[in-house]
Amino acid sequence: MKRVLLFLFLISCSSVFADDGSRLWLKYDLIKDEVYRKSLVKSYNQIVIQFESDKAKLAAKEIQIAFKGLTGKELQINLASKPELGGFNSIKKGILLTIGTDKSEKESEGFRIQSQKGSSLIIGKSEQGLIYGAFAFIRLIQMQGTLDFTINENPKIQVRMLNHWDNANGTVERGYAGSSIWKWFELPYRIDPRYIDYARANASIGINAASINNVNASSRFLTAEYLEKIKAVADVLRPYGIKVFISVNFRSPRTLGGLETSDPLDPGVRKWWKDKTDEIHQYIPDFGGYLVKANSEGEPGPQDYGRTHADGANMLADAMGDHEGIVIWRAFVYDADPDGDRFREAYDQFKPLDGTFDKKVIVQVKNGPIDFMPREPFHPMFGSFPETPLAMEFQITQEYLGHSTHLNYLAPMFKECLDSDTYAEGKGSTVAKVIDGSVHGYPITVMAGVANTGSDANWTGHPFGQANWYAFGRLAWDHTLSSEKIANEWVKQTLTNDSEASQKIVGLMMNSLPAYINYTYPLGLHHMMGEGHHYGPQPWLEKSGRPDWTSVYYHRAAKDGIGFDRNGGISNSLKLYAPEVIDSWGNPDKMDLNYLFWFHHLSWDYKLSTGKTVWDELMSRYYSGPEEVKEFQKTWDSLKSEIDIETYENVKGRLAIQYKESLWWRDACYLYFKQYSGMPLPNSLKEPERTLQDVIELEQIYHLR
Amino acid sequence: MKRVLLFLFLISCSSVFADDGSRLWLKYDLIKDEVYRKSLVKSYNQIVIQFESDKAKLAAKEIQIAFKGLTGKELQINLASKPELGGFNSIKKGILLTIGTDKSEKESEGFRIQSQKGSSLIIGKSEQGLIYGAFAFIRLIQMQGTLDFTINENPKIQVRMLNHWDNANGTVERGYAGSSIWKWFELPYRIDPRYIDYARANASIGINAASINNVNASSRFLTAEYLEKIKAVADVLRPYGIKVFISVNFRSPRTLGGLETSDPLDPGVRKWWKDKTDEIHQYIPDFGGYLVKANSEGEPGPQDYGRTHADGANMLADAMGDHEGIVIWRAFVYDADPDGDRFREAYDQFKPLDGTFDKKVIVQVKNGPIDFMPREPFHPMFGSFPETPLAMEFQITQEYLGHSTHLNYLAPMFKECLDSDTYAEGKGSTVAKVIDGSVHGYPITVMAGVANTGSDANWTGHPFGQANWYAFGRLAWDHTLSSEKIANEWVKQTLTNDSEASQKIVGLMMNSLPAYINYTYPLGLHHMMGEGHHYGPQPWLEKSGRPDWTSVYYHRAAKDGIGFDRNGGISNSLKLYAPEVIDSWGNPDKMDLNYLFWFHHLSWDYKLSTGKTVWDELMSRYYSGPEEVKEFQKTWDSLKSEIDIETYENVKGRLAIQYKESLWWRDACYLYFKQYSGMPLPNSLKEPERTLQDVIELEQIYHLR
Repeated sequence: MKRVLLFLFLISCSSVFADDGSRLWLKYDLIKDEVYRKSLVKSYNQIVIQFESDKAKLAAKEIQIAFKGLTGKELQINLASKPELGGFNSIKKGILLTIGTDKSEKESEGFRIQSQKGSSLIIGKSEQGLIYGAFAFIRLIQMQGTLDFTINENPKIQVRMLNHWDNANGTVERGYAGSSIWKWFELPYRIDPRYIDYARANASIGINAASINNVNASSRFLTAEYLEKIKAVADVLRPYGIKVFISVNFRSPRTLGGLETSDPLDPGVRKWWKDKTDEIHQYIPDFGGYLVKANSEGEPGPQDYGRTHADGANMLADAMGDHEGIVIWRAFVYDADPDGDRFREAYDQFKPLDGTFDKKVIVQVKNGPIDFMPREPFHPMFGSFPETPLAMEFQITQEYLGHSTHLNYLAPMFKECLDSDTYAEGKGSTVAKVIDGSVHGYPITVMAGVANTGSDANWTGHPFGQANWYAFGRLAWDHTLSSEKIANEWVKQTLTNDSEASQKIVGLMMNSLPAYINYTYPLGLHHMMGEGHHYGPQPWLEKSGRPDWTSVYYHRAAKDGIGFDRNGGISNSLKLYAPEVIDSWGNPDKMDLNYLFWFHHLSWDYKLSTGKTVWDELMSRYYSGPEEVKEFQKTWDSLKSEIDIETYENVKGRLAIQYKESLWWRDACYLYFKQYSGMPLPNSLKEPERTLQDVIELEQIYHLR
Repeated sequence: MKRVLLFLFLISCSSVFADDGSRLWLKYDLIKDEVYRKSLVKSYNQIVIQFESDKAKLAAKEIQIAFKGLTGKELQINLASKPELGGFNSIKKGILLTIGTDKSEKESEGFRIQSQKGSSLIIGKSEQGLIYGAFAFIRLIQMQGTLDFTINENPKIQVRMLNHWDNANGTVERGYAGSSIWKWFELPYRIDPRYIDYARANASIGINAASINNVNASSRFLTAEYLEKIKAVADVLRPYGIKVFISVNFRSPRTLGGLETSDPLDPGVRKWWKDKTDEIHQYIPDFGGYLVKANSEGEPGPQDYGRTHADGANMLADAMGDHEGIVIWRAFVYDADPDGDRFREAYDQFKPLDGTFDKKVIVQVKNGPIDFMPREPFHPMFGSFPETPLAMEFQITQEYLGHSTHLNYLAPMFKECLDSDTYAEGKGSTVAKVIDGSVHGYPITVMAGVANTGSDANWTGHPFGQANWYAFGRLAWDHTLSSEKIANEWVKQTLTNDSEASQKIVGLMMNSLPAYINYTYPLGLHHMMGEGHHYGPQPWLEKSGRPDWTSVYYHRAAKDGIGFDRNGGISNSLKLYAPEVIDSWGNPDKMDLNYLFWFHHLSWDYKLSTGKTVWDELMSRYYSGPEEVKEFQKTWDSLKSEIDIETYENVKGRLAIQYKESLWWRDACYLYFKQYSGMPLPNSLKEPERTLQDVIELEQIYHLR
């Protein structure tokens, strides 16, 4: 009976109240605070565009839509009869959109806003800047703060980009939110309205580029048949200032062109790429460029022909000719040397090439040296490549971070990397300042995020996955923003404007990554997830296609202790960093314990700076993780009245799974490591009811055909 | 400029008017016809339930929701104070829900409705019948006909079932509408509201069973971890009368149980299945049963141990013990004998087993002997298995029927098979009457449809795909319904109630399959699609993993003519049918030409009953297909004002792709077959501008990694 009533309740809801999350942070629901809403209604009567322009109209229209939703009032859009910047004071009760004339402002995508209640001036430093200005203005209205403010913003990174690992057949590699948002079989004739939603969402947070296919790339995307489809996507994204990139398969001259080689120094191959690049530009005149995964995890590349990464990248740059596009070459390469250390392999392969790349090339480096682990030390390439622009590659999709069932706010992870000091040009040479060009003066700057978007109604599977997309965009625009500020913006636009509730949610978000790390990879452990599917724990994984795909390669747990000694023991990878960094991570007694086992192998009874032994500290962290998730559940339960019912139930359900799986990780790691430590759980902690065999079998389920 | 304005228009629309199709045929938008709407409002004030019951309340709630949406008026739900069936006359302005007491009505899922304006009595022959009655009543209101009627319905088939070919990882085999609707990683804790939408949609058309995973089955679904998840789904579907089935992998006793064999006669194996079946019932007491694909296309099965399909199926039936569940054993088996004829292989394997199956077993047969081709003669097993219940397996998803880019209404295809006469017990022994049990007195009856549902907002990708799901359900309930009637119901509930517009759309739908067949497989051609992906034409496919996976195996085009002589030439498969059927298909001069090349190989200049040569007839059909699609485009364009803008644009875009691809098929088949016929196009037809090589390369795109 109770169940049926619940269904009836849900049914009634679903047609009336429930929010499926599809509107992201651009909801524009009526503002509940009547005083604030009325003050908006009273303050503004019109939007004034100072000149005829598609983008100005688009910006005006966005403000109109937002204002209508938030206040119920539809503002008229008017064209200023006498175009003059000084019109600011003469426009009453209006939002004036114009373009700045100051040529000294080289950051063409920036904007300024001078706002007083009833009179707001949005000055784009370019037409595109006007769109960003409009969305910034909308955000500030949504945040329900004062209407009196002046801001002046410029993006810190030139290319702020999503990397879609979307396959031609509609699946998404490491996607946990349904299938691809790109409907290749429907294109070019059917334009899914979600492409427009996608463009708006990205523009609203400053993202201006998207590579539309998996880096494990199909040549299909370079055929005329598919270029026509990609052109249709590019045409939708263009008005919002988003450029399209294509991931290419280095073997394309052979598979598509029928050539006998793909050697980058072969004249026929070079001509093929030149012609193909020209052809692409016939479809997409403002084509962003190529993204290339080469000689990595089985992908073809220039090394197949005895050439270097630079040979490959420069050949593509040359093919780009006079076109605007760039070549983004990924540094995610590693070999399967069981005696080596994957940590340093990209560095070793690329370091000798510094200074040999074409000026249209940028090398894209993952935030850490292994592979998007929940916590990695910053990649040692950052700060070591003064002559080669390096791009940042973050992963927004939660491959190793709980897929779409764990609530995991990633801004603190992005920030931890960005704020790390490389000391390349002395103190303060943070990773952020390396990639924004201020340390080495890079001519091209790129920040890429591997997208977590999919065809699910709410785009990201987990409703809080949206916050990671949002945070990535905001940080690519301005890496100095704090994680809390970004979380607060997202919550207020997306979930609730109630200040107590939003504070609670921001708190929960800020605690989410630390909790996740506690029950999965405390103290700098890494790469112990289920093989292939990367779901759940498998620290016992000893054999795989390559030694560096196992778990034991990384944790090195044995009778004598745990951790990967990269400080001279197994490898000397720590030496890749600046002396100051070596100092800070070289001594296990003085370092940030969060990075401990990245660099040190310590005995189980080694006494840490916390006063506990390695074993006790490890276990107390493993056991605290699930308790923290329980707290998240309590916090969320307390918010029921503040959150849309569908979103509330959605998150509540996922938190229950997260709790279950946090126990799985905890038990698996405890039961497995205990074999080596031979030590008991610290007193206060309760023995799991299951056995190591039980948790092993649980993981095996995901390998069953 | 124009483009930007279009975007702005779409943007404004999307937040206000646009329909994403997610509500299927249960939209319940306000009725536009004011007279009719007011008459409803005036006629009804309440819904009266005659007794306390979960299902009666659910039925009442469904009527309440529908009535509210359609008229704006919320009817109160009251419990009758004095339960008496005679209350019909005393309830004024009400809809009375009750249960019939006539024990002679054995069809427990049926219902009766006696309706006069202002007083409607819905009598379920069981509680579930009441739910079907409620949805029938809602449908009749939506159709906006008279409120004075009496109907009495019973389902003709007991188990009306969707087969989901959904994989554990979220992909869907032969799915063209996003990923799986089942979110296994979120279950059991998060119940996606779409599960409820799914249950309601199915209940509204009489579907009462769903097998939730691919017949190429993962053992994962039989683990305790996953049974808990399936239980959660079953709990959502149960209130709507839908039972859950699981597709099983025959090797499970080895992969899951650790046994050394899966031999169905091995006592350990039998015990394993018995225990597993009992375990399943602990989670799902009303478990529907097993669906099994065995010894087919590489799947394991009893033949691996020298046993028969009957040994395998009976073992599972035995495991079912006293539980209610049944075993559905698929007959889709074939071998790779290049000298054989796949057409007869299932017949040959199963015929000797007729009469040897356990009474809990039913053998599920695809509608035709090959594999869901756009037009197949009915499967020769139908009518030939008096001692073994046969289930019908239709394919709703458009694997060979244009995926989700071609508008293809399939009810006429289903009907053509159902209405075919097997002559098993004399004239009138139609396939429908075989599978509904009336010819041979089968104790179990099943009609299954391979689902076209996916995670896309509108469930089916192509908006008209919904009509195929709808039609399948309606025909499983009552196979005597006409395709036009079903189309008309669907259009009026889903797209428009305007009678002129709906007539046009029904006409388009009725012409869609013939048009598709014209440009793909006219005159009984079959199995010439792109290898593996089954998208677009590949008549030139000569080599594959098996001879019966090629195209040339089927069309047998050569200098001497075209077609597969199954009338004694290459095989004698036609002889599997009753003499009357052999008569009707045995003579190329007198037969329905739609089946011609299924049974005959004729020279290119053979003069057909149409007066044209084989070549001219073939080409005129290939050329008429695209012209018919052009007509669909014109018709659709003319409906713009009648259709929701998002749905309109969606279908318009897909029709454009369909037209393009109809030309691809036409040109490919003409250019390929011309090599053998050596004959020119009939005079009026225009030579394609492209070459055979061009269309070959187009298909190759879909094989590019």
